Amino acid sequence: MASSTHSVNFAAPRKFFTTFKNDCKETFFPDDPFRKFRHDKPLQKFSKTVQYFVPVFEWFPRYDFRLLRYDLLAGITITTLAIPQGISYAKLADLPPIIGLYSSFVPPFIYALFGSSKNLAVGTVAACSLLIHETIGAVASSKDDPTLYLHLIYTATFFTGIFQIAIGFSRLGILVDFLSHSTITGFMGGTAIIICLQQLKGLLGLKHFTSETDVVSVIKAVLQYKDECKWQSAVAGLVFLCFLQTARYVRQRKPKLFWVSAISPMAVVVAGCLYAYLGNAEQHGIAIVGDLKKGLNPVSIHYLNFDRQYLPATIRAGIVTGLIAMVEGIAIGRSFAIIKNEQVDGNKEIIAFGFMNIIGSFTSCYLTTGPFSKTAVNVSAGCKTAMSNVVQGVCMMLTLLFLAPVFSYTPLVALAAIIMSAMLGLINYEEMYHLYKVDKFDFLICMAAFFGVSFKSMDVGLLLSVGLALLRALLYVARPAPCKLGKLPDTGLFRDTEQYPETTSLEGILVLQLGSPIYFANCTYIRERILRYIYEEHAASKTEVEHVLLDLSGVSSIDMSGIETFIELGRVLKGKSIKLGIVNPRIEVLEKMTLAKFVDVLGRQAFHLSVEEAINYCRFTFDRARKSASNNDDAA
Amino acid sequence: MASSTHSVNFAAPRKFFTTFKNDCKETFFPDDPFRKFRHDKPLQKFSKTVQYFVPVFEWFPRYDFRLLRYDLLAGITITTLAIPQGISYAKLADLPPIIGLYSSFVPPFIYALFGSSKNLAVGTVAACSLLIHETIGAVASSKDDPTLYLHLIYTATFFTGIFQIAIGFSRLGILVDFLSHSTITGFMGGTAIIICLQQLKGLLGLKHFTSETDVVSVIKAVLQYKDECKWQSAVAGLVFLCFLQTARYVRQRKPKLFWVSAISPMAVVVAGCLYAYLGNAEQHGIAIVGDLKKGLNPVSIHYLNFDRQYLPATIRAGIVTGLIAMVEGIAIGRSFAIIKNEQVDGNKEIIAFGFMNIIGSFTSCYLTTGPFSKTAVNVSAGCKTAMSNVVQGVCMMLTLLFLAPVFSYTPLVALAAIIMSAMLGLINYEEMYHLYKVDKFDFLICMAAFFGVSFKSMDVGLLLSVGLALLRALLYVARPAPCKLGKLPDTGLFRDTEQYPETTSLEGILVLQLGSPIYFANCTYIRERILRYIYEEHAASKTEVEHVLLDLSGVSSIDMSGIETFIELGRVLKGKSIKLGIVNPRIEVLEKMTLAKFVDVLGRQAFHLSVEEAINYCRFTFDRARKSASNNDDAA
Repeated sequence: MASSTHSVNFAAPRKFFTTFKNDCKETFFPDDPFRKFRHDKPLQKFSKTVQYFVPVFEWFPRYDFRLLRYDLLAGITITTLAIPQGISYAKLADLPPIIGLYSSFVPPFIYALFGSSKNLAVGTVAACSLLIHETIGAVASSKDDPTLYLHLIYTATFFTGIFQIAIGFSRLGILVDFLSHSTITGFMGGTAIIICLQQLKGLLGLKHFTSETDVVSVIKAVLQYKDECKWQSAVAGLVFLCFLQTARYVRQRKPKLFWVSAISPMAVVVAGCLYAYLGNAEQHGIAIVGDLKKGLNPVSIHYLNFDRQYLPATIRAGIVTGLIAMVEGIAIGRSFAIIKNEQVDGNKEIIAFGFMNIIGSFTSCYLTTGPFSKTAVNVSAGCKTAMSNVVQGVCMMLTLLFLAPVFSYTPLVALAAIIMSAMLGLINYEEMYHLYKVDKFDFLICMAAFFGVSFKSMDVGLLLSVGLALLRALLYVARPAPCKLGKLPDTGLFRDTEQYPETTSLEGILVLQLGSPIYFANCTYIRERILRYIYEEHAASKTEVEHVLLDLSGVSSIDMSGIETFIELGRVLKGKSIKLGIVNPRIEVLEKMTLAKFVDVLGRQAFHLSVEEAINYCRFTFDRARKSASNNDDAA
Repeated sequence: MASSTHSVNFAAPRKFFTTFKNDCKETFFPDDPFRKFRHDKPLQKFSKTVQYFVPVFEWFPRYDFRLLRYDLLAGITITTLAIPQGISYAKLADLPPIIGLYSSFVPPFIYALFGSSKNLAVGTVAACSLLIHETIGAVASSKDDPTLYLHLIYTATFFTGIFQIAIGFSRLGILVDFLSHSTITGFMGGTAIIICLQQLKGLLGLKHFTSETDVVSVIKAVLQYKDECKWQSAVAGLVFLCFLQTARYVRQRKPKLFWVSAISPMAVVVAGCLYAYLGNAEQHGIAIVGDLKKGLNPVSIHYLNFDRQYLPATIRAGIVTGLIAMVEGIAIGRSFAIIKNEQVDGNKEIIAFGFMNIIGSFTSCYLTTGPFSKTAVNVSAGCKTAMSNVVQGVCMMLTLLFLAPVFSYTPLVALAAIIMSAMLGLINYEEMYHLYKVDKFDFLICMAAFFGVSFKSMDVGLLLSVGLALLRALLYVARPAPCKLGKLPDTGLFRDTEQYPETTSLEGILVLQLGSPIYFANCTYIRERILRYIYEEHAASKTEVEHVLLDLSGVSSIDMSGIETFIELGRVLKGKSIKLGIVNPRIEVLEKMTLAKFVDVLGRQAFHLSVEEAINYCRFTFDRARKSASNNDDAA
């Protein structure tokens, strides 16, 4: 018995405060953000704390001209994307197009101060634009009372900011973890579908349209108003779309030509403007954006509307869009950080987004975050720090001051083509197929989001998918897949008998491995399953089970219901003259077992450090019992 | 290397259908109810199936006179409890008292046919009586329109039955597992408090009272109407209460005298009736039940009210009370089955409850289930089969036919004392203190139910507590407590370095153990935590980590997000020139890793059967690398 000098460590349980502090730290500060300056002197600590909360102080002092060259190029590239995207997404939210441009001017500066990602490019996003329109549009019509509608959207943006800051400061970024990859894939795909369908209005040059977003309503509306179709608009739209898709294709084939794809929306806008200006497009049935005034963002803080009548809608819009924007921003930030091998603090990012939206709501901006497409272009263009956002802001300022009226000639159909092209790239067929191949339940979660969003609405789809994912999480823990272990011949290893058919079982000893935490949701199942294993073992081998060994190496925690299940199980097994042994309980489990007196009930000799040791112990007691039985026989 | 002849088994992943069937079986049929007759012949199978669904066919043919003796005694004992309890709880639900007696006549017969527990005694329960009054009372006043109120309660009982049968047939009894022991303890305690407070009306002989149930409203009402207090009533009530509590105390001290406690409520009722009849108690301010007609249950199927106006309330009351009744019934059935070492099929029990309630609603009964107190008395009185319920039904029939009018003299204060005494026994202080000592979070869950029920309402308390318990379950899986393993000196065992401080770590090799399923909710955390372990290891030992070994023995399942995290992690570690090794992946995990091509990306040589083997492999490659490096030096 190799491990005879060691035994299970029955140290006194740790103090509640110690474990509580530790649990809180792992729950809310899993990335240990303060480790870098825990051992510094007060003054140094202060400066590092400031640097931690306002990262610009960290990177700006070390900033040099070499880095600026990269950031300048990246910043200009993303501005060429920001102008058409800003106008398009503002139209999607049924806002004056200039608001879209405003939203790419102030927020990038704020992000550059507080943001910790070096890759993120700030801007408006399609999904949230549509969602905010859906929610606020229900209480205020953007047609009948555009001023009220606009003010409510500022208010919703303000609430988004407050919500995000609250989440960030209370370190609840953990919430983002509950949106699985499959949910996001499905949600993005479904959103892309409905946003594309919304573009049919612009593409076909329709005057009337539905305010619903689901597939059925939109197709009905298109069929209903099909007489309004303008073929000129449709042709122009298809040409633009083909051009944009070709540019995207070129980029996929030759990643070095990323700029072809990056500036193609701008090229479409410029071409569209020229065509509209020179060709008198409006007379050929091609509508243009119209009315873009020169000038920077006006102050809008006095427009925030806290009227009780609208409060529920604005708060709801603020929270829902804030959540989605946060997820998109953090997910994209993390993805690129992983590729570049950097770390991103999710909670700090959320706080940066929060400041961005609060100050944005004061300066005529609506919801901004880190959009997928823009960030990808930013990284491809070689950005090095958040300075690329500053460059974007400066370029946008110049545009607003001097160039804005030029873009008023942008044909709506060009914007529709830009949005559609961006959205088509978000439907990730390959990933969906991959999910189907590897994990059917993940595929179901993904499809719930996809079809929920496209056939019902964005929040229904999201809730359905998250609900399914949580259900799965709960089923995982409710049915934790215990398995029977057998001995691998010629080794001391015990492995799952199903996985390793060459294992042999031991006469009279049943070794079971339990995984995952044991607690109220699975303890009844575990008890029933263990009893069933005993029944099956007996039925299969026709020998009586004399020892049941439970390998708890994989059980990281246990609650009262779990411990009581073990106590009951011990009693039931005792009634059947079966001995219960516990193998390798982990620290938290053993502590609770000690506190609940389970260790005393079972006796310390029933706790073993390894399966091998436990089996030796069982055989020893077995032999001894047999010997004493035969001694008794002799005596008789 | 002892295990050199074995390696990780990379068999082709099982078919989706196989694993799906297996998962469904473990989720919905964890107790494998059909195992007993899977291999029988058709005719035998049929008879066993009938026996399975209608258990009376199983036990009745083997029933004999010896068993009947026990069941007769138990049945008579529970009837003496059923009469006062039936009247009291019907008053609690603000129903005519006779309904309480009706409800102990028909349902026990139904349960005897379909129920699988040998211990359960059928009857009405206090918590559900109060809850049904709360819910239905909100749409129909029991004072102003008692007929409508009564009919709506029949309808709610009908819906309870439908709901329970639906749950049972779709094998969703798993839902009951999600109510933890702590929730039930707190909920029972809180309910006991509010039911006791409701009895102040009867105890003090008040005429007016509040219809609210929370502590604050009730105390306010008592203070408001304190002038109505009758001292005679209060004195009689306290005497009864003292007697009942003494009887309970005797039983706790000498379990053999259980019958003292069991018949004490009946004794109180008889004493009360005599006092009221002989002493003209009504004139001394002691109200009596009044108006109990002879005769069996009238048919009530034509009273079921499916009026659209009341449908939401009746359906809601049906589902909520059905759920709580189900939990109480199954929990108590299981507890006693464990003590007697029998098995209870939760889903079958739920179906039996469902039939009981549907037929009950047709025959002037309201909600019945298996109450704690009655079942405990049934077991103490020595019941052997469900026949004790038949005896109860027969006794109740005789009571209804001949004795009912006698009980119309029961003083209300006697009923109040009986309810209070029963409820005081449900507040489990010791268990709460035990929870506080062993698990603070379980204590919090318990207190949420306790205070939620007593200060707000029963459903709020229950939801709050279940919500907290689910939150905890999700936090468990979101923060699965990985740990660092070290080698126990002189053994081949690797154990948690925190738990076993005598372990030694290996230079350049970091061994981590992951527990619980890995999936979307914890994969980001796991990645960050692993990277932090590498950072900490480096900071502590000042040597570079060259190998990271992940022991996945405890990981029972993984989803797409989890696998993608491993793929990313592999990439990040490669960037830092650290090699990733996987130790002992379980069958489901390995299958998904194979399907997702992670095995191909990492290479099969990175998968090991045990930590010891993995370390030998790491050292071997390490030595070889060093040797080739020094060879290169020599060559240079």
